[in-house]
Amino acid sequence: MIENIEQIKKLMLTCDWQPVIKKIIGFIEKHFEQSRAKKIIIGLSGGIDSSTTLALLIRSIGKENVIALVMPHYGITEREDLEDAYMVADKFGVEYINIELADICSNIKHRLSPFIEIDKKTYGNIIARTRMIVLYAFSNSMNGIVAGTSDKSERTIGYFTKWGDAAADIFPIVDLYKTQVREVARQLGVPNKIIMKPSSPGLWKGHLAEEEMGITYDKIDPILFAINELKIPPEKVKEIDGIDPIEVDHVIGMIETSEHKKAYPYPKVQDIIKGE
Amino acid sequence: MIENIEQIKKLMLTCDWQPVIKKIIGFIEKHFEQSRAKKIIIGLSGGIDSSTTLALLIRSIGKENVIALVMPHYGITEREDLEDAYMVADKFGVEYINIELADICSNIKHRLSPFIEIDKKTYGNIIARTRMIVLYAFSNSMNGIVAGTSDKSERTIGYFTKWGDAAADIFPIVDLYKTQVREVARQLGVPNKIIMKPSSPGLWKGHLAEEEMGITYDKIDPILFAINELKIPPEKVKEIDGIDPIEVDHVIGMIETSEHKKAYPYPKVQDIIKGE
Repeated sequence: MIENIEQIKKLMLTCDWQPVIKKIIGFIEKHFEQSRAKKIIIGLSGGIDSSTTLALLIRSIGKENVIALVMPHYGITEREDLEDAYMVADKFGVEYINIELADICSNIKHRLSPFIEIDKKTYGNIIARTRMIVLYAFSNSMNGIVAGTSDKSERTIGYFTKWGDAAADIFPIVDLYKTQVREVARQLGVPNKIIMKPSSPGLWKGHLAEEEMGITYDKIDPILFAINELKIPPEKVKEIDGIDPIEVDHVIGMIETSEHKKAYPYPKVQDIIKGE
Repeated sequence: MIENIEQIKKLMLTCDWQPVIKKIIGFIEKHFEQSRAKKIIIGLSGGIDSSTTLALLIRSIGKENVIALVMPHYGITEREDLEDAYMVADKFGVEYINIELADICSNIKHRLSPFIEIDKKTYGNIIARTRMIVLYAFSNSMNGIVAGTSDKSERTIGYFTKWGDAAADIFPIVDLYKTQVREVARQLGVPNKIIMKPSSPGLWKGHLAEEEMGITYDKIDPILFAINELKIPPEKVKEIDGIDPIEVDHVIGMIETSEHKKAYPYPKVQDIIKGE
């Protein structure tokens, strides 16, 4: 019986992480072999998710088989994030390629500006999707597969760009909540600076995930874990000591309004055609 | 008991199409309302799938709510296809916007060329994904949703660009096989020229779907219909009079090698964490 938030945090964050890491590493290995790929391509931002995914890829298939693409946008990507990305690549000894995106993305913007207004958010989505195009161009030409870096918190609340950062071939950490990724990152030797810094999709200058959402992952994750993993009904989650009912509604609202990002709606008509 | 291919074709292609059209129109209407969108955005190529989807959108929510984007690439898009796209837009009286893509796509190519070789196929994928970026930029700025134009044949055999033409918010004709789309198109008044011309994704000069696949939709569809809709085991399908067993293997091969385009593989770890 869960009575307070600390119990949830303990269940969620305290465990032997080695079997978890082992399972993810085995998963990567299996898909790398099954797809007969020559490389795995990953976009490296200098954030916790991509750094952790990179570390897992390297442990699994070796650094010689991993291509990390660092894709900053001048004027938008923070200099510090960029340096963090290089630092992580260096630390893990992986080859990285720098593809600056301002030219490509501003070209798209200027091409469309006579017809529509490209605001900050629309432009951010263009950046996220351009990253996908670049990752897949490398993947196509190197006979590779693309590793996604989404985590379970982002996925569940819909905090991603459809067909952008959420578009990949395999998703090594997508069953780990953000605060769990931090624990795994520690085990893998991801630098503490990366583990501790605030999450950012980097889609505009000063873009911070928790600020945009109006709630922190420390609050989001216990709520998601209670609902999804412990199967506690939302109304009961609201009664748990240390959880703010308003924040439960906030999280459920994010899940519901992002349903369309995960759905594939279409009308079923074959039964009509067959006369059934 | 199915004994020959003509029986399959009859089941697949002979029916009262009005209830099918009605169901699709209702589906579009429902999603347009539920999403509280102001517009539905569609990429119009002048091919059968996008022309038919456009006709369905217009019947459903009215031409004033539909934005058709024609996105040719100089030197790749056939002049005739482009004229067909304009002709269809004019016929259905829908507003269309022309966004030429050569500049954007060649810019991406030149940016990546120092690192990788961009061959015809890789470049074709860049075009398909750039179309997605443009559709979504319009969708973002107009508070719209994007209608996909994939049909069930392409989807099932994996003949699409992952995160490119297959990326959308709703998929009005994705439960119709290509040869069924032709029947629906006739009912909707899509010009005969469009219905009869060979299918092309338009990703390189002279690109023809059936030539690239080495098999025609007239052969593919009865095989897919027999396996998927009539639930006849593949080995039995091979024995049907008029069906070439080699072509059954060809179709099954296409389905299997494209599985990765439809999958979302990830390692499940929450049970390990919870200690279950």
